[in-house]
Amino acid sequence: MNQRIVALGGGHGLYATLSAARRITPHVTAVVTVADDGGSSGRLRSELDVVPPGDLRMALAALASDSPHGRLWATIIQHRFGGSGALAGHPIGNLMLAGLNELLADPVAALDELGRILGVKGRVLPMCPMGLSIEADVVGLDSDPRVSRAIRGQVAIATTVGKVRRVRLLPGDPPATHQAIDAIMNADLVVLGPGSWFTSVIPHVLVPQLGAALRATTARRALVLNLVAEPGETAGFSVERHIHVLAQHAPDFTVHDIIVDSARVPSDREREQLRRTATILDAAVQFADVSRPGTPLHDPARLAAALEGVLRRGIAPTGTAQAIPPTVPTPTVNGPRGDDPWR
Amino acid sequence: MNQRIVALGGGHGLYATLSAARRITPHVTAVVTVADDGGSSGRLRSELDVVPPGDLRMALAALASDSPHGRLWATIIQHRFGGSGALAGHPIGNLMLAGLNELLADPVAALDELGRILGVKGRVLPMCPMGLSIEADVVGLDSDPRVSRAIRGQVAIATTVGKVRRVRLLPGDPPATHQAIDAIMNADLVVLGPGSWFTSVIPHVLVPQLGAALRATTARRALVLNLVAEPGETAGFSVERHIHVLAQHAPDFTVHDIIVDSARVPSDREREQLRRTATILDAAVQFADVSRPGTPLHDPARLAAALEGVLRRGIAPTGTAQAIPPTVPTPTVNGPRGDDPWR
Repeated sequence: MNQRIVALGGGHGLYATLSAARRITPHVTAVVTVADDGGSSGRLRSELDVVPPGDLRMALAALASDSPHGRLWATIIQHRFGGSGALAGHPIGNLMLAGLNELLADPVAALDELGRILGVKGRVLPMCPMGLSIEADVVGLDSDPRVSRAIRGQVAIATTVGKVRRVRLLPGDPPATHQAIDAIMNADLVVLGPGSWFTSVIPHVLVPQLGAALRATTARRALVLNLVAEPGETAGFSVERHIHVLAQHAPDFTVHDIIVDSARVPSDREREQLRRTATILDAAVQFADVSRPGTPLHDPARLAAALEGVLRRGIAPTGTAQAIPPTVPTPTVNGPRGDDPWR
Repeated sequence: MNQRIVALGGGHGLYATLSAARRITPHVTAVVTVADDGGSSGRLRSELDVVPPGDLRMALAALASDSPHGRLWATIIQHRFGGSGALAGHPIGNLMLAGLNELLADPVAALDELGRILGVKGRVLPMCPMGLSIEADVVGLDSDPRVSRAIRGQVAIATTVGKVRRVRLLPGDPPATHQAIDAIMNADLVVLGPGSWFTSVIPHVLVPQLGAALRATTARRALVLNLVAEPGETAGFSVERHIHVLAQHAPDFTVHDIIVDSARVPSDREREQLRRTATILDAAVQFADVSRPGTPLHDPARLAAALEGVLRRGIAPTGTAQAIPPTVPTPTVNGPRGDDPWR
């Protein structure tokens, strides 16, 4: 119960991981993407220059206390204004985060304060203390399928009819939230994904200081694959392709475990092929029943069981499940700025 | 410390009374006008059909706990969004109240919940569970000074260049918040005013059930006069005229004490005249130093001392200060609806 889990992601995928992680330990830290430019978050970004609050609010709701007050406030922050006026569609929690951020001039302090109201035991952090943009190279938008176009913005990328080849952050080397780096360095387990692959998962490894911390931490590192390919940014992607594009975006990035829903890769032949692909991340594949039967959603209890299995492997390696020993890269986060290859 | 004080009013005047009352007892109930149609409250009313939250928010801030969290949240709810967009000028607390109200479908539950976050020891209640309008008969707007025009809306009335003769509520017999009636009936001291006379003070006695409760309660009843005549609705009003217009609007309404700043009525001749005027409300005049020197503002500590003096008179009448015994009207609030003259 004293284990520390850090979950990186955004949106509904992160909500699923957090709902699972809170069953294992009260020490859960969410590290959340900050590139959303749609809906209420997009409106608030363009009006107030705030870190987009939507994914952060979702993470707070996922970690809210089970007390009556915690549940009430989780409902309150998720409630969207009705009507057809200036407030319509804004969740109350987005407005509270935007206001707290404006008043306190510190997105982490704003999240800590709203987290206190919800009785959040862990912590919700933005991956960067500022809003970012995502730009993608997309093919298939022109009559010539080889032509690549740069598409900018999370909404545009998530809904493109083309094929996303590569994403990058704007600005290209944003600072990481230092509390997020601390959490990763002090974690027992770090979980990346599931979620929108190009816009919620890969952005984390593109923040130089976060990528360095993910390499330097002694925590067990797990990647949770999506249950289905998403329409839009990963339409038609195989399980292997998810792993390949992540590796392409972060060549030195490794994880110990890749958690894959058993039902998605039923045959032995496919599983063997996936195990071979996983070696490009130095990873062992953990097949587990993690979906809610009949839905494309992760089941919190089943995902929690899979994460606990991974944690046990990290704490007491038995050699049964770990095909490849974890790499132990040299920490670079706290080195002198001039020696840090990520700046 | 167990005495129960109910303060009726709105805006900055109510804030002053609450700041004084909380020094005497933790059992303070604010009963707040709900006719504001200006600024953020007006925008939210027209967009979402909510009880105007501005004066309610101010009352919550006045009663917020002295703890660090209480003080922080008092600052948070009062903070107004900057920028120049759809949120600009909205205090965070107004948006929270509007959202809570929409979600909980009960303005009292919304106030109780936000009050809990602020550590409010007492309670803040709207005088009616719905937004109201005020209409005023105003003279002096035409070349013929005898012509009276009906002016509608709190902002229009508060800023009229004419002379306000009479105000009425729209609808004319709105229901009172039942918790407000209960608080008045169970109070040791009920305080009306100070505040914008026609738009924050008089509206309370125009709500039939509230007026009846104010007559029926066994509480000591005090009226706190304004320190200066307000530009607009009471420009040029004498102390006596404030008392006269209140009496005109509620012929049967009486109070035990009228608290008047000593500096406003310096001469013995004027004081004697004021005492005679006060008899139309069956009231004794209590002269006291209640202003912050050099300002037109009530000083919380001094006003608290004056209210404590009034409370002592109510608990242990000595006959020294009370010229006229309090009237004890027959309670009508809980009578059968058909027998209630106020319906």
